[in-house]
Amino acid sequence: MTAQEAKGLLVTFEGVDGSGKSTQAALFVERLAQAGVPLLALRDPGANAISERIRAILLDRSLAEMSPWSELLLYEAARAQMTGQQIIPALAEGRMVVCDRYYDSTTAYQGYGRQLELDLVHQANRIGSCGLVPDVTFLIDVELEVVRRRLSARDSDADRMEAAGLDFHDRVRRGYLELAAAAPERVYVIPGNRPIESIQRHIWQLFINRFQRHLNRPGEENA
Amino acid sequence: MTAQEAKGLLVTFEGVDGSGKSTQAALFVERLAQAGVPLLALRDPGANAISERIRAILLDRSLAEMSPWSELLLYEAARAQMTGQQIIPALAEGRMVVCDRYYDSTTAYQGYGRQLELDLVHQANRIGSCGLVPDVTFLIDVELEVVRRRLSARDSDADRMEAAGLDFHDRVRRGYLELAAAAPERVYVIPGNRPIESIQRHIWQLFINRFQRHLNRPGEENA
Repeated sequence: MTAQEAKGLLVTFEGVDGSGKSTQAALFVERLAQAGVPLLALRDPGANAISERIRAILLDRSLAEMSPWSELLLYEAARAQMTGQQIIPALAEGRMVVCDRYYDSTTAYQGYGRQLELDLVHQANRIGSCGLVPDVTFLIDVELEVVRRRLSARDSDADRMEAAGLDFHDRVRRGYLELAAAAPERVYVIPGNRPIESIQRHIWQLFINRFQRHLNRPGEENA
Repeated sequence: MTAQEAKGLLVTFEGVDGSGKSTQAALFVERLAQAGVPLLALRDPGANAISERIRAILLDRSLAEMSPWSELLLYEAARAQMTGQQIIPALAEGRMVVCDRYYDSTTAYQGYGRQLELDLVHQANRIGSCGLVPDVTFLIDVELEVVRRRLSARDSDADRMEAAGLDFHDRVRRGYLELAAAAPERVYVIPGNRPIESIQRHIWQLFINRFQRHLNRPGEENA
């Protein structure tokens, strides 16, 4: 099934670690819930037994010899399971699906960050997402220096960021901005170096402007 | 790195479960070892810590809800790890690599058996094999009725075959024959309903006719 056949909306949140995207996704979900919208909130990779098993391999630091291609394909396998088992059925029921990360993360991290061939990453993304395209994506963009300051509060994350290298994170951020520029009708860039509440209002306003009717009669109309 | 840059040879064995391909791969490896050829024998999926972790997910029968796309991508992830970590370095050292299954299995089982779009399966295969193409593939072909008789000796395998359905196995066998017909210069179809020794001699003769010089000066020349 493709996005075209689905009745609900797929909304994704993207950004580098420490950008605040998970916080914003959670606030967005809260606001939708208050509005009475039937919804499903997911985290990619994860959200079901198979994808969590795959996620455990991806996060196992003892497996340092993982090839970047194997890493790419594991993310896609976890995504394919989540898409087939959870997203597509929820959209078919007319529910709103909110995802913390989806395939743009793979383009940014594996394509730009690890510098894998972008054509192959796009092919893998299409397979892993079963051809589904988000209806709208909020990319929370923050400068690297801000992220570093934020992550220094959580020691292990800061260590990991240093380990991967600042160049890597710079390529990931640049990758996100490039993919947003290539799909301006889908990906909204949200400046993330502002108070949480102000970012939240910005996202909600953009969303309402475009998808108001989905809130009024959830599941009955489509963009 | 691609097959063209590698110095060694990649030889793969293919066929349905119960065809005798693993037995033939083992005998072939034994004969190469007797001839003093430096080699690496592998089983796909598996053969390293990461791929074995992935294999464990694939074989876990409690995960019955696995989507066919997730299954496909997990096979490719295991293959990408084996290819990057083991096959490509071995070929670069001029070693002969013998694989019990490789991407033709995915074409046959996921493409023909599970009827996933062949174009997407081929794309996934190219990513999972890092662009590597076997130098030669021996497809052990046996009729379904013969396989059934053989597998009835091992109860659990016969059960599994019945569970997947005879139609499935018939599509897999037909898929193998189609892909062999499409790449006759690479894939040799070996009739498998004969004594083990006779099949072994057949395979060895075909191999020697084409790759004799690789046995004389392993690693120094290429086909």
